[in-house]
Amino acid sequence: MSRCPGGPPPFPFSSPQVRAIVEAALEEDIGRRDLTTAIVLAPGLWASGRVVAQGTFVVAGVALVGMVCRRLDDRVAVEEVTEDGQEVFAGQEIVRLVGPASTILAGERTALNFLQRLSGIATLTRRFVRAVEGTGVAIADTRKTSPGMRLLEKYATAVGGALNHRLGLDDGILIKDNHILLAGGVRAAVERAREAAPWGMKVQVECSGEAQVEEALAAGADAILLDNVTPATAQELVALVGKRAEVEISGGVSLENVAQYAAAKPQRISVGALTHSAPAVPIHMVVERADAPAG
Amino acid sequence: MSRCPGGPPPFPFSSPQVRAIVEAALEEDIGRRDLTTAIVLAPGLWASGRVVAQGTFVVAGVALVGMVCRRLDDRVAVEEVTEDGQEVFAGQEIVRLVGPASTILAGERTALNFLQRLSGIATLTRRFVRAVEGTGVAIADTRKTSPGMRLLEKYATAVGGALNHRLGLDDGILIKDNHILLAGGVRAAVERAREAAPWGMKVQVECSGEAQVEEALAAGADAILLDNVTPATAQELVALVGKRAEVEISGGVSLENVAQYAAAKPQRISVGALTHSAPAVPIHMVVERADAPAG
Amino acid sequence: MSRCPGGPPPFPFSSPQVRAIVEAALEEDIGRRDLTTAIVLAPGLWASGRVVAQGTFVVAGVALVGMVCRRLDDRVAVEEVTEDGQEVFAGQEIVRLVGPASTILAGERTALNFLQRLSGIATLTRRFVRAVEGTGVAIADTRKTSPGMRLLEKYATAVGGALNHRLGLDDGILIKDNHILLAGGVRAAVERAREAAPWGMKVQVECSGEAQVEEALAAGADAILLDNVTPATAQELVALVGKRAEVEISGGVSLENVAQYAAAKPQRISVGALTHSAPAVPIHMVVERADAPAG
Amino acid sequence: MSRCPGGPPPFPFSSPQVRAIVEAALEEDIGRRDLTTAIVLAPGLWASGRVVAQGTFVVAGVALVGMVCRRLDDRVAVEEVTEDGQEVFAGQEIVRLVGPASTILAGERTALNFLQRLSGIATLTRRFVRAVEGTGVAIADTRKTSPGMRLLEKYATAVGGALNHRLGLDDGILIKDNHILLAGGVRAAVERAREAAPWGMKVQVECSGEAQVEEALAAGADAILLDNVTPATAQELVALVGKRAEVEISGGVSLENVAQYAAAKPQRISVGALTHSAPAVPIHMVVERADAPAG
Amino acid sequence: MSRCPGGPPPFPFSSPQVRAIVEAALEEDIGRRDLTTAIVLAPGLWASGRVVAQGTFVVAGVALVGMVCRRLDDRVAVEEVTEDGQEVFAGQEIVRLVGPASTILAGERTALNFLQRLSGIATLTRRFVRAVEGTGVAIADTRKTSPGMRLLEKYATAVGGALNHRLGLDDGILIKDNHILLAGGVRAAVERAREAAPWGMKVQVECSGEAQVEEALAAGADAILLDNVTPATAQELVALVGKRAEVEISGGVSLENVAQYAAAKPQRISVGALTHSAPAVPIHMVVERADAPAG
Amino acid sequence: MSRCPGGPPPFPFSSPQVRAIVEAALEEDIGRRDLTTAIVLAPGLWASGRVVAQGTFVVAGVALVGMVCRRLDDRVAVEEVTEDGQEVFAGQEIVRLVGPASTILAGERTALNFLQRLSGIATLTRRFVRAVEGTGVAIADTRKTSPGMRLLEKYATAVGGALNHRLGLDDGILIKDNHILLAGGVRAAVERAREAAPWGMKVQVECSGEAQVEEALAAGADAILLDNVTPATAQELVALVGKRAEVEISGGVSLENVAQYAAAKPQRISVGALTHSAPAVPIHMVVERADAPAG
Repeated sequence: MSRCPGGPPPFPFSSPQVRAIVEAALEEDIGRRDLTTAIVLAPGLWASGRVVAQGTFVVAGVALVGMVCRRLDDRVAVEEVTEDGQEVFAGQEIVRLVGPASTILAGERTALNFLQRLSGIATLTRRFVRAVEGTGVAIADTRKTSPGMRLLEKYATAVGGALNHRLGLDDGILIKDNHILLAGGVRAAVERAREAAPWGMKVQVECSGEAQVEEALAAGADAILLDNVTPATAQELVALVGKRAEVEISGGVSLENVAQYAAAKPQRISVGALTHSAPAVPIHMVVERADAPAG
Repeated sequence: MSRCPGGPPPFPFSSPQVRAIVEAALEEDIGRRDLTTAIVLAPGLWASGRVVAQGTFVVAGVALVGMVCRRLDDRVAVEEVTEDGQEVFAGQEIVRLVGPASTILAGERTALNFLQRLSGIATLTRRFVRAVEGTGVAIADTRKTSPGMRLLEKYATAVGGALNHRLGLDDGILIKDNHILLAGGVRAAVERAREAAPWGMKVQVECSGEAQVEEALAAGADAILLDNVTPATAQELVALVGKRAEVEISGGVSLENVAQYAAAKPQRISVGALTHSAPAVPIHMVVERADAPAG
Repeated sequence: MSRCPGGPPPFPFSSPQVRAIVEAALEEDIGRRDLTTAIVLAPGLWASGRVVAQGTFVVAGVALVGMVCRRLDDRVAVEEVTEDGQEVFAGQEIVRLVGPASTILAGERTALNFLQRLSGIATLTRRFVRAVEGTGVAIADTRKTSPGMRLLEKYATAVGGALNHRLGLDDGILIKDNHILLAGGVRAAVERAREAAPWGMKVQVECSGEAQVEEALAAGADAILLDNVTPATAQELVALVGKRAEVEISGGVSLENVAQYAAAKPQRISVGALTHSAPAVPIHMVVERADAPAG
Repeated sequence: MSRCPGGPPPFPFSSPQVRAIVEAALEEDIGRRDLTTAIVLAPGLWASGRVVAQGTFVVAGVALVGMVCRRLDDRVAVEEVTEDGQEVFAGQEIVRLVGPASTILAGERTALNFLQRLSGIATLTRRFVRAVEGTGVAIADTRKTSPGMRLLEKYATAVGGALNHRLGLDDGILIKDNHILLAGGVRAAVERAREAAPWGMKVQVECSGEAQVEEALAAGADAILLDNVTPATAQELVALVGKRAEVEISGGVSLENVAQYAAAKPQRISVGALTHSAPAVPIHMVVERADAPAG
Repeated sequence: MSRCPGGPPPFPFSSPQVRAIVEAALEEDIGRRDLTTAIVLAPGLWASGRVVAQGTFVVAGVALVGMVCRRLDDRVAVEEVTEDGQEVFAGQEIVRLVGPASTILAGERTALNFLQRLSGIATLTRRFVRAVEGTGVAIADTRKTSPGMRLLEKYATAVGGALNHRLGLDDGILIKDNHILLAGGVRAAVERAREAAPWGMKVQVECSGEAQVEEALAAGADAILLDNVTPATAQELVALVGKRAEVEISGGVSLENVAQYAAAKPQRISVGALTHSAPAVPIHMVVERADAPAG
Repeated sequence: MSRCPGGPPPFPFSSPQVRAIVEAALEEDIGRRDLTTAIVLAPGLWASGRVVAQGTFVVAGVALVGMVCRRLDDRVAVEEVTEDGQEVFAGQEIVRLVGPASTILAGERTALNFLQRLSGIATLTRRFVRAVEGTGVAIADTRKTSPGMRLLEKYATAVGGALNHRLGLDDGILIKDNHILLAGGVRAAVERAREAAPWGMKVQVECSGEAQVEEALAAGADAILLDNVTPATAQELVALVGKRAEVEISGGVSLENVAQYAAAKPQRISVGALTHSAPAVPIHMVVERADAPAG
């Protein structure tokens, strides 16, 4: 939700979307039952599991390890040893679990799939955020997220230090090139949006050059999106807008060139790669026998 | 499902999991409604959309573009211009759509999110497959998939030429190090599996060295998994197993070293990165006004 | 979504929430089956149904009649004779249906329940809108809607001419008295909101008097909510705010006093009664035998 | 379920329909998350909430306040200070809550929406019941309920003292004018119903005059429904039926004329307005900081 | 719903419960996909399927064959060659299908599982009905049905000629021995039921002897249930009740002794075995290649 | 999952399919509410229930009694007095419950429906298993299960001592006569399966005579299914196969002739009747008043 200067943003525990994707992930992995565990382990066995980093990265999604395992059996006890947003190194413990051995093993892969992906996103995001540190420019995410994972992946970018852009098509107005084309021009599109926008929502418009920028501002746009421009063009157009509106840059931004774009001093740079191309980070689970609880 | 020599594998149209993730993706993106489109476009407008590649890659998931848009409004007409498994280059058309403009725009991002991810997976998979071409060794996928996307991502690896490993915990038996530890050793674990396995399923065992390999084979394992071994060790252990069982190598395999592992001549090399770290490929949608159907 | 000067706003056909409440309404009314119809009517009978107004009111929700009946059997043909937003008088036809008699009868009550409630809301809304006509003040709705009916009831207020306020807790920021109390004051609350708001969302603050208004404006509020004030106080505080922010009035507003509040010239007056206390309007269905389709 | 002389009827806690509408109401209000609370409140804050009447009315649905808030977080503690069916006055406490502040605030509107509507229904119902007190005539509800709220609204009418009529189309037989028309007359319809009714269900028939009443009784009807008759006609037809069957009056019944209808001495008078037009009663929640639980 | 003298009762097509169990059955059988068909059949193949009886029995559930297959792919064409309620002999065709070969094979087992079970129930029911033919006593079913199959199994007993008893706990009042014990006696239980029963529902009471029968009748019971009595006791108690109420006999009724119970002349004899112990009837599907449709 | 020599197989507690069928069974039985209990019992009453055998049989599904009742109200305390797989006689207690009286009564029928059916299946299965005891031949189940009950009924056959065959179409490869016909012969079908089978799955082929058996073995089949053969033919064909593959016999197997088939020494005999035709066993619940818990 924000850049979280003082700690990670609140984890979306109560979201039905989060509960649904946890459920879906377990169903698709376990299917009818964890066959290997059912036939190989003695019944009644308890185990502990330690989730351990195998590299250096920013952790995000620690809470999901417990959610996944406790969804299978609420006797699983969970201790979170690190906090989302913390940087860990190889060998460092992230979460400790104790519970029925069959549950720990059945939930392991699903829990790690969540944690590795979200931590990967937080890690890549932090690299972008660091690359523009001190410029006052914010790194923002996009709607280019994995299907079903929107809320969690947006949470992970926030953990990494990014600003969340729209969560969906219903919580913000962004008039893109296709809207402009179908609406019959920038002015027509912005004017309609101005008139009909629900109260409290600003109007952002994608502009491809000087003329469109001026037309958008004249029609009352609150913000300009410059998509797929060079750093040089960005510089000119940000200067053109000045204090009349906010400016966001997107498209073709990489770790290599993000500082050049930041030099243009837009308010935000949004980066699709944060969510669509972050590689997973290496994490595994170390399991040992544990005592079953008395009684 | 297989390496699909003569064309892509059958797309899992009728799977409830696939329908569910399409539904979830649309719900999380559209939320209450596509606000911008609702207030900016004139009602009753029709549009065409052309899904176009912006780079060179292997296409996978073409059918999802239509599924997504037609889920919103079944008046959308879809023409698939390329076929899954085909390699496309920048500027090449993949799918053409005609339908209500508001539907085309509302479904655009969700459709592209599916297509960019699956094509990314197929593209990376094909690079691994090509890297071992001629060796007779198969590239296999793993359960390290995006939550909710298992079936689709496994479909994409098959499109790329990989062999599907287990789809879930219920359609195969793989005794891993944690099972062995909790079961009290390789022999105990394999013997129990042999006795209780449902008919028709082979028993695979993860082994960490020569002794475990011999113990597993003696207990009747059908296949050995060598996890996180060096190419040299792989060579030795594959030779040790010989024709007594199949061998799979996994862990630490990259495009750089996969040929070295293939030289050990295992039956399969499984690669988590195919699904957990494939970057999305660049695709966009070009929209134009279209005539609404008569009547 | 807006005040719809040129026609009703787009009906939320594709919303999963709308589909869900239609489904729920049919399930709770039909239960296991429409017993009377099943045992009293000859099988294979077809019927026509005419939905007819029994009083003067503004129609809203015409599309739901067809959605409900076609959900039961897609052979039902629907002709919408009036359009949402139109004012009808007793005896005027609203929708015509032809289909299997058992379907028409099974869906009748559920369809009318939707139509009577939404038309009641649109009708009451239009009375409020008329009562402030010419003042430039907008009537807005609230979150005080019937459980499960939010989107449809907000659609009905828009049909009646109101401005939609927040659809939910996630698409707008409104700092109310309870937030202020728990956050430790107006300034602290507004400053945190300013810093962490997702891009594009304005910050509205409920203020109980002059001091709070000044504190909110100083901290950067975009809009002020005056809740449960007298028309006189409203007048003073709106003047105090001037052009520094927008002002909304709510609480204790009735058809009798709304013009007095409008005289204070706030931007908006929001009225919970539009949705929580609008009486249903009288509508019934007239059924006749019809010919079954050939073949 | 009944007129509950000795206390409120049992609340339908375990009904899946009730759980579903609670879930739907929370989802549509909270959406992706309670944005204001998330960014304005300090994490870890606890609060108490007191649900307080702002007028005089009959309470119904107290249990829903706890269900709603505990659905979000089961650490919320709930104390019900009044009981359904009790009359409260302005300033009187109804429920006390203690829990995480963000949960109390996120659930507030949804909880109040339920409570205000159901209490409104119970309050209006009691006014009708009082208006016929001493006549021996029962006030009954109808199927004209808010979509998705059938069970809860029928519960509220019972709390108010009404008799529940059919809960749906499957738990009673009521042959209405449209059935008679399509079945080819009263006699044909009643005879089919008599023959095929599941055991234990009486047959009620809507009759428009003397001839239909006699025909229905001759064919074996257990009860007669007189719809939209004047009090005078009601008097005549009730006398005509005598002890041969029960009689119910419906249509056009208001608080003003219900006593006139009761004078005709039918067994029941059913009133759609109980559920389709009861205005919400005024209730608000007063929040204060609370201590978080130790440990 | 009834004894269907002139044809089978209406099939519950639109019931959500029926759609749900069809969906559940397909999901549990197909799981992720029909593996054998996917890898063995050439893509694009079409086939016809003929569902053929392999013994003599009463058919019930013909419509489900089409529902199951068309749920997978709506291109499947279905021709119903027999009608529910018809008696077929070995070799007789019941349904013909034409569609994609993979769909026909994937749906085969699920479709047959429904048809074999429901036809088994209809067949056993008809044997009971025939055993009491001419006595005027009705055979009724019970709530002892397969989980999830209530509506379909009750439909099958109606096809077989039985009278449907309660469909669930909400559409009838049956005071059983456990209710009597917990309510403090027959009189207390019946009186409460009389007072609080929704309108239109009769009150049935389980009685274990003469005294309870008299107590129940005195308190106003509409019907008596005699559970687990001998034919001789049944005779006495039915005579005792006379015309004062209806009598139903249940418990320990078999094809061997049902005529003896019928001789006591109760109104109904209810038989749990109709649904909990009817053996499946033999049916198979004969498949051939078919031409794919042109275009 | 297996023949469970040392105890029952693990009960599939965490399976979503099991939770879904429990939910569906309760919904269809209780519907809107347990009407009789609601109006007859005093509120706040507690009761104990003892589930008691009324005949001799093998118990299966004990855990479902608690699952069903606790799904309604988690204050129900459950004590399992017998264990799945145990043989009980008339009068023997199986489970004891204590909880709110209305919950015990509302859940009774659903709980017993599960327990009677599963125990019936386990009982019939054990009779088949005993009939082949000492021959080394396993009894296996089939996919001829009750819709929605697959996992539970397969669990019950395992409790009875059977080997589980495929749980669905996705966890095993079985090429049946219809596949062979559509694939163009045994060889073509088996070769395709060999090539495309996911790793770890054996290929089984239904063969109708000596020629097909040889063709299947030559093409690499791992197992042969002989369907609807006489014991004599079975003998010959099992001998023909020898050690080249496993053999399974199915079709027309009864308690009377199963020993004859076992004499042919196949690896397995699969019996559809275990699940499609096992009669329910007699079980009832004895209820008494209990003290409500203090506080």
